[in-house]
Amino acid sequence: MVSPFDAEIIAIGTELLIGGRSDSNSIFLADELGKLGIAVRFKSVVGDGKQDIVLALRTAATRAKVIILTGGLGPTLDDCTREAVAAATGHRLGRRKEALEGLTARLAQWGRTATTAQLRQALIPAGAAVLKNPVGSAPGFCLTWKKALIMSLPGVPREMEAMMQQEALPLLRAASDSSGVPPRAPIVRQLFHTFGLAEADVDATLTGLIPKGAPVDLGLLASPMGVLVSLTTKGNQSASKRHRDLLPQLADDVRSRLGGWLFAEGRDTMEEVVGRELATRGLTLALAESCTGGLIGHRLTQVAGSSAYLDRGVVCYSNRAKTEMLGVPADLIARQGAVSRAVAVAMACGIRERAKVSVGLSVTGIAGPGGGTETKPVGLVYIGLDCGTGQPITREFRFHGDRTVIKQRSSQAALDLLRRWLLDQGPV
Amino acid sequence: MVSPFDAEIIAIGTELLIGGRSDSNSIFLADELGKLGIAVRFKSVVGDGKQDIVLALRTAATRAKVIILTGGLGPTLDDCTREAVAAATGHRLGRRKEALEGLTARLAQWGRTATTAQLRQALIPAGAAVLKNPVGSAPGFCLTWKKALIMSLPGVPREMEAMMQQEALPLLRAASDSSGVPPRAPIVRQLFHTFGLAEADVDATLTGLIPKGAPVDLGLLASPMGVLVSLTTKGNQSASKRHRDLLPQLADDVRSRLGGWLFAEGRDTMEEVVGRELATRGLTLALAESCTGGLIGHRLTQVAGSSAYLDRGVVCYSNRAKTEMLGVPADLIARQGAVSRAVAVAMACGIRERAKVSVGLSVTGIAGPGGGTETKPVGLVYIGLDCGTGQPITREFRFHGDRTVIKQRSSQAALDLLRRWLLDQGPV
Repeated sequence: MVSPFDAEIIAIGTELLIGGRSDSNSIFLADELGKLGIAVRFKSVVGDGKQDIVLALRTAATRAKVIILTGGLGPTLDDCTREAVAAATGHRLGRRKEALEGLTARLAQWGRTATTAQLRQALIPAGAAVLKNPVGSAPGFCLTWKKALIMSLPGVPREMEAMMQQEALPLLRAASDSSGVPPRAPIVRQLFHTFGLAEADVDATLTGLIPKGAPVDLGLLASPMGVLVSLTTKGNQSASKRHRDLLPQLADDVRSRLGGWLFAEGRDTMEEVVGRELATRGLTLALAESCTGGLIGHRLTQVAGSSAYLDRGVVCYSNRAKTEMLGVPADLIARQGAVSRAVAVAMACGIRERAKVSVGLSVTGIAGPGGGTETKPVGLVYIGLDCGTGQPITREFRFHGDRTVIKQRSSQAALDLLRRWLLDQGPV
Repeated sequence: MVSPFDAEIIAIGTELLIGGRSDSNSIFLADELGKLGIAVRFKSVVGDGKQDIVLALRTAATRAKVIILTGGLGPTLDDCTREAVAAATGHRLGRRKEALEGLTARLAQWGRTATTAQLRQALIPAGAAVLKNPVGSAPGFCLTWKKALIMSLPGVPREMEAMMQQEALPLLRAASDSSGVPPRAPIVRQLFHTFGLAEADVDATLTGLIPKGAPVDLGLLASPMGVLVSLTTKGNQSASKRHRDLLPQLADDVRSRLGGWLFAEGRDTMEEVVGRELATRGLTLALAESCTGGLIGHRLTQVAGSSAYLDRGVVCYSNRAKTEMLGVPADLIARQGAVSRAVAVAMACGIRERAKVSVGLSVTGIAGPGGGTETKPVGLVYIGLDCGTGQPITREFRFHGDRTVIKQRSSQAALDLLRRWLLDQGPV
């Protein structure tokens, strides 16, 4: 029995199926649908073939009442979502005035006129409502077929997200309100980002968290950047007071159990957290990166406004660079090796003094696959932090994984050390 | 009509459906199946619910003759692929001796003994063949149902890939040989990476490439890193001499049409190409990054052995850093602005001289979202290259997109300028 709260996503594009691009739209869609209590039960990925899209649509109609198609709305002959929906549902395609107007207005804004190929984008199945594209040129559309609501959105995430929020969700809400089916409690998903604990340790820390029979699922997802903990409410529960209060209580319990291992919640990232703490304290930062090769600088500068606290960084890949740019004594490198606690300290102090900033942060390690020895294996990484008090902090790590993973973990460990140091400075 | 060469992938796991992890297994599977002429027509993603897996399996059996399941073979109660396959196909689950032996042997190798939960992993549907796990603990299995070959593999890419290659593919080949159906030509996919041309321009450049009716598909995929061109042979053609020769001919045509815009083929990346050219010429490099924030250094150091040519980099985010670390005159910055052709040149020269390397490469620009003006909008980027001849090269770009996209495009444009300069130095 298909519930009106069962959804399916159909992602269209040969490149998604076999070509090396993965679909990133479903997380956003699951979140947005969840707010209406609608659960994504299936996702199908199909190539650009019209018949395969028709088949996927027919299958979806047997097991979902909300069907979201993404992709295949472009101007090329490969883009045949319009034709496939028309064929599957038995509606004729026709050029729609409002679709054409939106398309030409957008192109005019970009200083262009529609090509013959682009005019195909104004073809809409008869009976479907046009969904305006708030940021791009391709219109989407929405229609009801076999009691399922079919929404066709662009595949480009930015366009899909804008169309979903401004056009599709209001229609979904209206359909839900007029359906006579009582609304469901939203599916709420709360995320907690940890770093430094293994998945098994996070698991053990959270044992017994969820009371037996409580309508909340606990999920763990390990990656080189840490273990992600999720609490997800089940959408099929009534929004009774007891259930509404449960999630905040569990979230508090997660926070107190995870303590300092928890570095961010929700969509927040490590670099945003660290940047915010630096900015609110009026502190400045400089980086000395060896094995991370610039990754920490890259991550910190992903945050808009990071120039307020990040003064500079050096990527000192060669020993000569460490000596010339940071003043790391050549004989210290000769005696202790470039990958050593002492060199990590000298790098952090060196960059802080030269840049005249509040904090210097350094990383030196062996990312592999070559360069390891018995005493200094691949994955050995030292992190240093100096704030000019004469008491630099260092940490030693022995990471596993390939070059990419070791670089990722090293960058995360360095930023986490900085985060913990910032929090130790007390409230602002 | 379902062909014996139609495949479907079913990826199992709630985290894949809604939780922020995307499935990366299908590209590998499509490649491997393609070698046998088998085309992946559909991919389904389902959560951990047993009934949903059963439903996905039933659907797949109506449209594919090779069904590959990935995931859900772990030891927890969430892992119910075994139960779902047994339920869908009407086979009883039982503990299989060879599955148990492989599992306990692997755990023993890791110094552990099987927990009760782990023993569940030795449960295999009656009539199925056990697929050994060459690198992990969870065994897979293979059975025939409704004339479809069902293969259940682990979700961890490393384990899935090893099991596919060592266990599943030999079985698939044997099944194909004994089927009496004549084998198909392999599906071959050849990739060409371009940078600097818009998708529409690549499209125009390649117009008329594929002769009418030729069994090859041309695909284009645009991203901030450039436009990817693919040539994919259709698996349903016989391996006649004419068709065997066609792909190499088309590939040559693609190369000559794309010329210098083509920077890499196959799995090669820009940073590998640039690194190889630097290494074979014995040249060394230093970077001066402003708006890219370390991304170019990060990318170059993703390549093992990059320490042979990358000496150092600086991330000079502040004006003071540009002056102190690179010797960019403060009054030049005051007069022309930090984002200017002159400052890009001064940065490239400054880092080359200080690092005493062959080539200095610089980027300065406005990544946004703030910081733009009417004359210097967000997306304005200057790239400089200096090799000490007194004739530095600079390029101006006006990129569109958000902060991440502008950083990506800037890093790619800088590396591409270096690549073109390296090739202009003539053959090694």
